[in-house]
Amino acid sequence: MKNIGRTARLLTLSAAALAAASAGAAPSPTAVELAQQGKDLGWWIVEDLTTEIGPRQAATEAEAAARVWAVRRLNEMGFQNVREEKFTMPTWVRGDEQASLVGPFHPQKLAVTALGNSASTGPKGIEGEVVYFASFDALQAAPDTMVKGKIVFIDHQMAPTQDGSGYGTYGRGRFTGPNVAAKKGAMAIVIRSIGTDDHRNPHTGVTNFDAGVKPIPAAALSNPDADQLVRQWERAQAMRPAGGHGGDPETLRMKLLLTPRNLGQQTSGNVIAEVPGSDPAASPIIIACHLDSWDLGTGAIDDAAGCGIITAAAKYVMMAGQPRRTIRILWAGAEEVGVFGGKAYFDAHGKEKHAVALESDFGADRVWRIDFKLPDSAKQLADRLSAAVAPFGVVRGRQPANGGADIGALVAAGVPAIDLAQDGTRYFDLHHTPDDTLDKIDPVQLRQNVMVWTAVLAILANSSDAELP
Amino acid sequence: MKNIGRTARLLTLSAAALAAASAGAAPSPTAVELAQQGKDLGWWIVEDLTTEIGPRQAATEAEAAARVWAVRRLNEMGFQNVREEKFTMPTWVRGDEQASLVGPFHPQKLAVTALGNSASTGPKGIEGEVVYFASFDALQAAPDTMVKGKIVFIDHQMAPTQDGSGYGTYGRGRFTGPNVAAKKGAMAIVIRSIGTDDHRNPHTGVTNFDAGVKPIPAAALSNPDADQLVRQWERAQAMRPAGGHGGDPETLRMKLLLTPRNLGQQTSGNVIAEVPGSDPAASPIIIACHLDSWDLGTGAIDDAAGCGIITAAAKYVMMAGQPRRTIRILWAGAEEVGVFGGKAYFDAHGKEKHAVALESDFGADRVWRIDFKLPDSAKQLADRLSAAVAPFGVVRGRQPANGGADIGALVAAGVPAIDLAQDGTRYFDLHHTPDDTLDKIDPVQLRQNVMVWTAVLAILANSSDAELP
Repeated sequence: MKNIGRTARLLTLSAAALAAASAGAAPSPTAVELAQQGKDLGWWIVEDLTTEIGPRQAATEAEAAARVWAVRRLNEMGFQNVREEKFTMPTWVRGDEQASLVGPFHPQKLAVTALGNSASTGPKGIEGEVVYFASFDALQAAPDTMVKGKIVFIDHQMAPTQDGSGYGTYGRGRFTGPNVAAKKGAMAIVIRSIGTDDHRNPHTGVTNFDAGVKPIPAAALSNPDADQLVRQWERAQAMRPAGGHGGDPETLRMKLLLTPRNLGQQTSGNVIAEVPGSDPAASPIIIACHLDSWDLGTGAIDDAAGCGIITAAAKYVMMAGQPRRTIRILWAGAEEVGVFGGKAYFDAHGKEKHAVALESDFGADRVWRIDFKLPDSAKQLADRLSAAVAPFGVVRGRQPANGGADIGALVAAGVPAIDLAQDGTRYFDLHHTPDDTLDKIDPVQLRQNVMVWTAVLAILANSSDAELP
Repeated sequence: MKNIGRTARLLTLSAAALAAASAGAAPSPTAVELAQQGKDLGWWIVEDLTTEIGPRQAATEAEAAARVWAVRRLNEMGFQNVREEKFTMPTWVRGDEQASLVGPFHPQKLAVTALGNSASTGPKGIEGEVVYFASFDALQAAPDTMVKGKIVFIDHQMAPTQDGSGYGTYGRGRFTGPNVAAKKGAMAIVIRSIGTDDHRNPHTGVTNFDAGVKPIPAAALSNPDADQLVRQWERAQAMRPAGGHGGDPETLRMKLLLTPRNLGQQTSGNVIAEVPGSDPAASPIIIACHLDSWDLGTGAIDDAAGCGIITAAAKYVMMAGQPRRTIRILWAGAEEVGVFGGKAYFDAHGKEKHAVALESDFGADRVWRIDFKLPDSAKQLADRLSAAVAPFGVVRGRQPANGGADIGALVAAGVPAIDLAQDGTRYFDLHHTPDDTLDKIDPVQLRQNVMVWTAVLAILANSSDAELP
């Protein structure tokens, strides 16, 4: 609750700004005016989901409970065609997890968490020599002999960025570091959490091994624990005699216990709801978030917030009067563990026409930029949208929109996209940790998201077929 | 590392300020000048202890390893009469700890940690109805029938304060809440952590049961988990029919597993070192910190920092030339679990003469206030000390000095005291949590502590017998 109020100013809009934000929308009261009055719908959805369900890992009983909750709430809010669309997927679940540095210094426990798809160490755990790599690239460049039979550690220097771009660069240590280490014959791998905070809550997340590569135990340490490992590594290196080798008493050694399990194919599902448009021939707008979360926190910023934002905005547009186009809301299942919900949606609906796709899956801090990937026919539409969001402090970007994970297959297949890019400065402090909880959401910034989305959806849902075919 | 640099300005002192800070000290280079040059001795002690030993709970093997480390390091630094003074004490150690809210909503795990001296739930754990109290006072006022057989929850509204005064007010929930709940017949108690952060790292700390009161399981939830419990409690209350009672399906229920053990009498110890004074007849100055820590973090702010600060300052005074009075350094054992080290020191040395006592045990953020409890003969000395610390941004307080835990018995017996009060605004974000690690220490503020202590010690160690008998 420490960051509240930074954008409060942006929510007290003048009548002129409101008019700009509502341009092209329905008659008075506009959707944006309704959003400004209806302060708490986005918050209410996030609070309700995180309080009554909490963590909801894909294809577990908790995610199933979240779908039941979702169908009930979406119906209660007055959306139409509310339904589950189930699918099956390979399912991995966490077990016990413990790590310690056991030599050459006094034994110390480390805060550790398994990465999704990690192998098990078995119930007795393993012990091995630690080998340090300053980066994923350094591991990739290392000869197999340096890694074989050891516990690999990958360090990095990720720092916060507003656009979240550090995730791609430094995230490789998690995405593919374990695969590279396994191919080189490592006993196990621990990485510095792909995160920017300084709390002893490690960041989980999925990793993937190539077909034919035998998975190894793979885990993340919190940043303070990674710092401790690095300090001990440096001290141990300084103690080693010249020409020292593995097995020296000065070697840094780790014990690791991880007992995750693979449950085989289990059931997950998407939840879909609609605001039906007045023109059945008009192609619909698809807006997405994901309902599943990692198991460590309650998935408030990732991604209850996204579901709260897009759904509140759709509700305000609906309240302002029936839009011309249908707005389809996708609360995707199983995003975290491999975007299975997005793929299932594409398999079921990819051949249907979609006017434009948008996604909210980067926390609850304010929208600061709008990006477009639209057909040439939509140039004026993009100008109108940019003007409508400017009063909320949102600037127009210079790069094409990316889309997002759950609409990724649609966008790759040519569906136009708009990004309402959120401020990610705090995001990787919390992402995939136990600290992803409701208290981290700034209600003022969450409201700014809802208002920006409302302004954008109101315009898009009433756009012409000439603009968005 | 987010708070670095706030006091950097205070460390670039002018020559005139240095002269003020060094008033009454040895000839050039003064201790303060040496402290200003020797930037990193305080940091080095903290880094070394937290890296090579880490957590060091009282009367465990880790605290014994810390004493061995301490004796070696204090000798290496050139202190005299370095020695362990052992004692025995009743010893409690943590076991497994798990908590979940299991109804009326979807089951969710909570981040929980046992309080020192908690009873065990047994290996199968317990399950019970939660009863909410907004404060310790509300629990104390409640009839036994409201509590009997239930799991008590104590909430509070602690906020950060610079002088740490919230700890006394809100800390009662931990210090004596379990005792009160046990006397009223509670099955167990969980409290909102006595802390001001919003991370899922609960704050441990000792609790005590009166003689004749049977201990119950007692634990702390992190602030976000306490928030979650409160939200579920409020929703469950709203669902209950009028006149509802325990056993309703709408009752908020918790599962709790805590398996701590009492190990009986175990060995702890103090470590003592001295800077011998030139006048054997002059009474010594005693300066204290504590070497033990809680087990969850590495005890960086609590209290490796205190040991680093006082010891670096004593070293700089020693380097500037032999002082008139002996400076005795007490690295106390077993402070966290009941000030056993401070009591053992008093039992062994309480009848010796001590000129004045000072303690550093409130983190590593800057000294902001100096308080005195001195004899009338020391009025001018207090003025000189106040003038010497003013260049470091330290103001003179209006209240008498308190002393501190490990010098508490000495001060109660009449030994004069000086407090170099540290800024506690961040302290209860970290206190007794896994997050008490080296990265939380701002090296600039740590240096300010060392310089203030050096300025004060240099004056005190050369004060006259007329001032401090």
